[in-house]
Amino acid sequence: MRRDFHRHPEIGFTEFRTASKVVERLTCLGYEVIYGQDAMDGKSRRGLPSDEVLESCFNRALKDGTNPEIIEKMRGGYTAVIGVLKGKADGPTVAFRFDMDALPVCESAEVDHIPNVEGFRSEYEGNMHACGHDGHTTIGLGLAEKLADQQFAGTVKFIFQPAEEGVRGAYSIVQKGMLDDVDYLFCQHLGTGVPLGEFHGGSTGFFASTKLSAHFRGVSSHAGASPEEGRNALLGAATALLNIHAIPRFSSGTTRINVGVLEGGTAANIIPDYAKMVIETRSISEEVNEELEKRVRDIVKHSAAMHELEFEIEMIGKAIPIRCDQSLVDLAIEEAKQVDGFTSFKPFRESGSIGSEDASFMIERVQKNGGQATYMVIGTDIPAPHHHPKFDIQEEVLPRSVELLNRIARRML
Amino acid sequence: MRRDFHRHPEIGFTEFRTASKVVERLTCLGYEVIYGQDAMDGKSRRGLPSDEVLESCFNRALKDGTNPEIIEKMRGGYTAVIGVLKGKADGPTVAFRFDMDALPVCESAEVDHIPNVEGFRSEYEGNMHACGHDGHTTIGLGLAEKLADQQFAGTVKFIFQPAEEGVRGAYSIVQKGMLDDVDYLFCQHLGTGVPLGEFHGGSTGFFASTKLSAHFRGVSSHAGASPEEGRNALLGAATALLNIHAIPRFSSGTTRINVGVLEGGTAANIIPDYAKMVIETRSISEEVNEELEKRVRDIVKHSAAMHELEFEIEMIGKAIPIRCDQSLVDLAIEEAKQVDGFTSFKPFRESGSIGSEDASFMIERVQKNGGQATYMVIGTDIPAPHHHPKFDIQEEVLPRSVELLNRIARRML
Amino acid sequence: MRRDFHRHPEIGFTEFRTASKVVERLTCLGYEVIYGQDAMDGKSRRGLPSDEVLESCFNRALKDGTNPEIIEKMRGGYTAVIGVLKGKADGPTVAFRFDMDALPVCESAEVDHIPNVEGFRSEYEGNMHACGHDGHTTIGLGLAEKLADQQFAGTVKFIFQPAEEGVRGAYSIVQKGMLDDVDYLFCQHLGTGVPLGEFHGGSTGFFASTKLSAHFRGVSSHAGASPEEGRNALLGAATALLNIHAIPRFSSGTTRINVGVLEGGTAANIIPDYAKMVIETRSISEEVNEELEKRVRDIVKHSAAMHELEFEIEMIGKAIPIRCDQSLVDLAIEEAKQVDGFTSFKPFRESGSIGSEDASFMIERVQKNGGQATYMVIGTDIPAPHHHPKFDIQEEVLPRSVELLNRIARRML
Amino acid sequence: MRRDFHRHPEIGFTEFRTASKVVERLTCLGYEVIYGQDAMDGKSRRGLPSDEVLESCFNRALKDGTNPEIIEKMRGGYTAVIGVLKGKADGPTVAFRFDMDALPVCESAEVDHIPNVEGFRSEYEGNMHACGHDGHTTIGLGLAEKLADQQFAGTVKFIFQPAEEGVRGAYSIVQKGMLDDVDYLFCQHLGTGVPLGEFHGGSTGFFASTKLSAHFRGVSSHAGASPEEGRNALLGAATALLNIHAIPRFSSGTTRINVGVLEGGTAANIIPDYAKMVIETRSISEEVNEELEKRVRDIVKHSAAMHELEFEIEMIGKAIPIRCDQSLVDLAIEEAKQVDGFTSFKPFRESGSIGSEDASFMIERVQKNGGQATYMVIGTDIPAPHHHPKFDIQEEVLPRSVELLNRIARRML
Repeated sequence: MRRDFHRHPEIGFTEFRTASKVVERLTCLGYEVIYGQDAMDGKSRRGLPSDEVLESCFNRALKDGTNPEIIEKMRGGYTAVIGVLKGKADGPTVAFRFDMDALPVCESAEVDHIPNVEGFRSEYEGNMHACGHDGHTTIGLGLAEKLADQQFAGTVKFIFQPAEEGVRGAYSIVQKGMLDDVDYLFCQHLGTGVPLGEFHGGSTGFFASTKLSAHFRGVSSHAGASPEEGRNALLGAATALLNIHAIPRFSSGTTRINVGVLEGGTAANIIPDYAKMVIETRSISEEVNEELEKRVRDIVKHSAAMHELEFEIEMIGKAIPIRCDQSLVDLAIEEAKQVDGFTSFKPFRESGSIGSEDASFMIERVQKNGGQATYMVIGTDIPAPHHHPKFDIQEEVLPRSVELLNRIARRML
Repeated sequence: MRRDFHRHPEIGFTEFRTASKVVERLTCLGYEVIYGQDAMDGKSRRGLPSDEVLESCFNRALKDGTNPEIIEKMRGGYTAVIGVLKGKADGPTVAFRFDMDALPVCESAEVDHIPNVEGFRSEYEGNMHACGHDGHTTIGLGLAEKLADQQFAGTVKFIFQPAEEGVRGAYSIVQKGMLDDVDYLFCQHLGTGVPLGEFHGGSTGFFASTKLSAHFRGVSSHAGASPEEGRNALLGAATALLNIHAIPRFSSGTTRINVGVLEGGTAANIIPDYAKMVIETRSISEEVNEELEKRVRDIVKHSAAMHELEFEIEMIGKAIPIRCDQSLVDLAIEEAKQVDGFTSFKPFRESGSIGSEDASFMIERVQKNGGQATYMVIGTDIPAPHHHPKFDIQEEVLPRSVELLNRIARRML
Repeated sequence: MRRDFHRHPEIGFTEFRTASKVVERLTCLGYEVIYGQDAMDGKSRRGLPSDEVLESCFNRALKDGTNPEIIEKMRGGYTAVIGVLKGKADGPTVAFRFDMDALPVCESAEVDHIPNVEGFRSEYEGNMHACGHDGHTTIGLGLAEKLADQQFAGTVKFIFQPAEEGVRGAYSIVQKGMLDDVDYLFCQHLGTGVPLGEFHGGSTGFFASTKLSAHFRGVSSHAGASPEEGRNALLGAATALLNIHAIPRFSSGTTRINVGVLEGGTAANIIPDYAKMVIETRSISEEVNEELEKRVRDIVKHSAAMHELEFEIEMIGKAIPIRCDQSLVDLAIEEAKQVDGFTSFKPFRESGSIGSEDASFMIERVQKNGGQATYMVIGTDIPAPHHHPKFDIQEEVLPRSVELLNRIARRML
Repeated sequence: MRRDFHRHPEIGFTEFRTASKVVERLTCLGYEVIYGQDAMDGKSRRGLPSDEVLESCFNRALKDGTNPEIIEKMRGGYTAVIGVLKGKADGPTVAFRFDMDALPVCESAEVDHIPNVEGFRSEYEGNMHACGHDGHTTIGLGLAEKLADQQFAGTVKFIFQPAEEGVRGAYSIVQKGMLDDVDYLFCQHLGTGVPLGEFHGGSTGFFASTKLSAHFRGVSSHAGASPEEGRNALLGAATALLNIHAIPRFSSGTTRINVGVLEGGTAANIIPDYAKMVIETRSISEEVNEELEKRVRDIVKHSAAMHELEFEIEMIGKAIPIRCDQSLVDLAIEEAKQVDGFTSFKPFRESGSIGSEDASFMIERVQKNGGQATYMVIGTDIPAPHHHPKFDIQEEVLPRSVELLNRIARRML
């Protein structure tokens, strides 16, 4: 199943095929399944792809045999799936969250890349499961199968989330109220630098992060006949790009800044009248991240004004830091110790290297309502870093993870 | 006919529908028609669009009812059409050249834009006949109809050229030998700042021009987890962009520089590993243009090296200055004086504002073979500059131009 | 005398030694001499050097034996000298204007540079007469000697101007009213691309020009301990520099832009809190020059704002185009034809390559008052361009020029 | 004494007055005094000021009554002073190191700045003791007075170091062998964020640091007449500046980058042929600092090459991280607990905020020879950060520090 997902990687909000498979499987296992507009608040989605991309991916999924009735409900980028199952007795609601999306990375076709050698390299050229979410989804469905026996007291809730990359999808599920009845929330990630056999019951060091899209609008003119009549959007954008990268380091803590995309202009002999830029800031501190965002906005504003351009800035992604509840961290470690294959146990994964997570909004919502949550890390050796064309996971970690989450679920319920 | 062309603007090397109409009309009028790979040297085409774009435009033309047999021969961007007709007696070969391509400009939808108001605004959204080539093609077919009577001594040759914008298409027709038997070549352009009623028998001041495409290739990495492992293609490209624009003015004559397109990067949180830039240089002097090209190449090279990027530079368009033969200039003016509607006559249009023309390669070939050539300008008032979303021509200039060229043809043959 | 001036080059407003020699010579010849604050409006001087530089050059002149009483009146940068002599009868007032200042260029010490070989290379290291003003001053004094005989009807007025380089000095002499009684004004320049033996009675193509000084003020902080607390003046200034150079070419005519100086920062580990930039714009059109100046001001403003800097822009030099009176042009050529050594005569030097001239303000004032003026060019071959470390003039042009101006003066008076 | 030093702040290698006072005082107390070229290896000094600055500061010190015989030996920037005293019995050699230099910061003249209000603001305008080295020197002389009684076993060695700012002076003292006989070395700093009453027995987190000076050499030309003949050094330098600031953050640890100085160009109308830049890199890791230095060098190289400039890079300062010996850290804390006024004790000051220290080279040398060393921090509240125009220390910390160091010395000897 993981290899099937790996071969069909779908980027954020286009997980039509993946989400349909999840819907089918959960339905088949007897879960109540909520999806499409019932599971997501449309306006709270951040960084939605263009209609054209959404449609093209929709059609690709159709062509690849996805159930038309199911994905019709997901049309337009509504690809979250929630599965709910009540146990034989009353009890708390325990939720597990899994992300399903892939990355716009072109997967390695080299002979030392296992998915290539073993024939499950991405068939959607240019997209790749380079962050292990194929594994996450697989674990989720494995867990759903185990819990289908309903031998527990309370309710189990599965949250299959789109668009974690770019920290764009979780917020719309939270805003739809899907987390409001959750007492305990368990999130997890494979890898992130943790070796096979090691397990972390919680995480710290997630970055606050903001993703912005900036649009520069000028005036086109013929570059030979009347260059002075143009207002050059690319000059403004290139100036912004260099200056955004030149925002200083902060002594108060780690920061990150990136301009991930810049696109503008139409033809060699036309002064470019439009450019678009995608920018990301991160900081270990929410406050510093706000300051970075402010500086980026200032730079965009004045780079535009300098060249008499108009500009517009859109928020396309946002995450906040995560605080894990100690009692869940301890409990998760206790259970992990009972699972074969885990040999090293740590309370908190500390490094900020994993970046940002929009599970942060889910965790915050559960905690605000008096519940508890944690974000666990399950080790796997990786041949290349996350988001790299040669990223891969060790598949033996999948059954082991299912077993761990199953134990946690039984313990909580 | 001009309005039909205007409604279906096709950019360089994708003039499938336009060229097919030309083929059909010329055939119908009794011309020998050479087109497709018979009319163009494939390798000498510059700045060919991607296969994807070529195919998509091909399919669009098909869908719009274009004759499948004809355009099949043009598939892959072979959209030149040559029409040849021998007169009743022997004589010289006189050629007329018309360009057919449109621009990637989004046509105005405002109420003061006549094509919009009168219902012939572009139906190919994002493309527009904003340089009058729809008029040129129409004039060409009008002239072909007049000369279909064969009442002349010699051979008339019609050259319908693709991809004049970007100075990309003429060279491949020249390299195929299509100009080798031409004794006299007449090229013309509508507008270019010349008012209605005015006629210029020749032109000076065409710029030497080079269009380059530069590719920057770096290494992607996760912008949060390991920014230092990336090699940022957009940093290199933005640096090149600013420095290319900062190339100094030349005291030896007018120059122009533009970076018309910059595109790079994939996602907010990934260090961009690729960026592409399209650059144009122009100069009234071929030598200075070579120097500009050299400086651009140096800047690209070192902007890339500065960020440990690899780079590649492609030549995607080139033009040279034009020298018109005085005898043809005089002759054209004499004939224009016989045509109603022309009231002002000048030997040479002087300003360099029209930019560059790859008819220059055709003119050079004819002259090298001992022939003569000129590049005439036929005035029309225009509501907005060439390449502007509100560009338009006055249609009364079309029959008048046909009449003028007919007179010239009869005079020469 | 020219070689003495050449050995002691003094930059704008520091011509203490040169101007003193002029005062002494004119006095000795019987002229009424006006100088110091009597000849210049202090506030109308543009781009005055710092007090420190003024004092240091003042002391250098003192040390080199300049008459202390005379230069005391020039202290603080009042280095204009006006010489007036009435003839034996009444008549018009005819003025001749000469500029005296040198450039901050380091003179060549190579063996093919004649001033070096013949022992009159600059003794003021870093300054150089690289524009021929040493010759101009010499011609002026030669002419003064000829006219000391008072054998003419009317008044002759000599204007020895400081700080022509940077177009900074003339305006203050105009504002002091020194041109208000002038009926005819003759200005001239050696070289500027005109070969030996050629004479131009007038000039066109002088550029409108603006020189600005921009100050960026930020906040310093320790670059290691708290970089984010700084506001980096050099980041703002470097951004402005690149973008000023990237201001587009104008299709309406030749333009020039330069950032001639950039200075900022104090130490490696301190975020720079101040930077200064000196900028020049030029255009053949006064209107376009205004537009260039506006764009430069916008770029400075927003480059500063982008980095939360304060800024200030000072006007330190300005010139306008020159219109020469045809009758004086003709008359000058007539006289030149009578002088041995002149063999080629042209009415107007056309190229804009000489740049800008603040004689333009003097000419404008005379013409506004109903007088006439011209700006002549006297040819000399030059081994290297103006402002180049190897610039030099041919000395035989000096007596020839004196003779020409003497003939003109006698003719006018 | 501290206020006298504060009033006469002398920047690195120009501490002629300060060092002379130290020589006089140590001599007077009976110490053997080594200074001038006997105490420093001339070639190992980094970032020496120009001869002009050295001479001008030398003369300022002379004018301010400094002993001419003493400072003559320091002429040219040899301002280190070593004082040696043997005790009454044999024993180890214990060294104390104090830095004496000030900063090029303009001291606040506001009414809330105590040195201003109480009349000991800097008299050397533009220089300021904004890092507490006036206090360090004072403590050193206070300690020297206490130990003049020779009531100890072994040898005490005082090292008064020039040019700590910019991490430039220590290395030359080390290279002269002055540390080779030292068994124990104690270095200390006031403030650095530690409050009054707190004492740290050691420090970690000092940055590896490199300071470079980059020179860009182009070709000047007249910006109006022949801009294309110039090779613009400021364009290269501004490009380097922006790109140096855009070097990415490193996930492996904290980094810092600054371009502290940029100066170039001569006049508004001359294409700048020279620019100079001063750059600093820092990293908590020596290896990453090497990588930063490499990237800076690449950026400078290619920014120069892009504009056909020549370049040169000089190393003007360097520091390495510090490792303190635990036994000295413990011992220092024990003694501090015996001194009135110290109320809080910590083993290691952790933050990297203090930046870099070239005491690192002294510590490394002592440790390499089998000795031990530590770098202590003595708290004082400060009204503004180090290097700020309003920086100040609390003077009660001075006698307290003398007492502490005296206890340490007695304990070691």
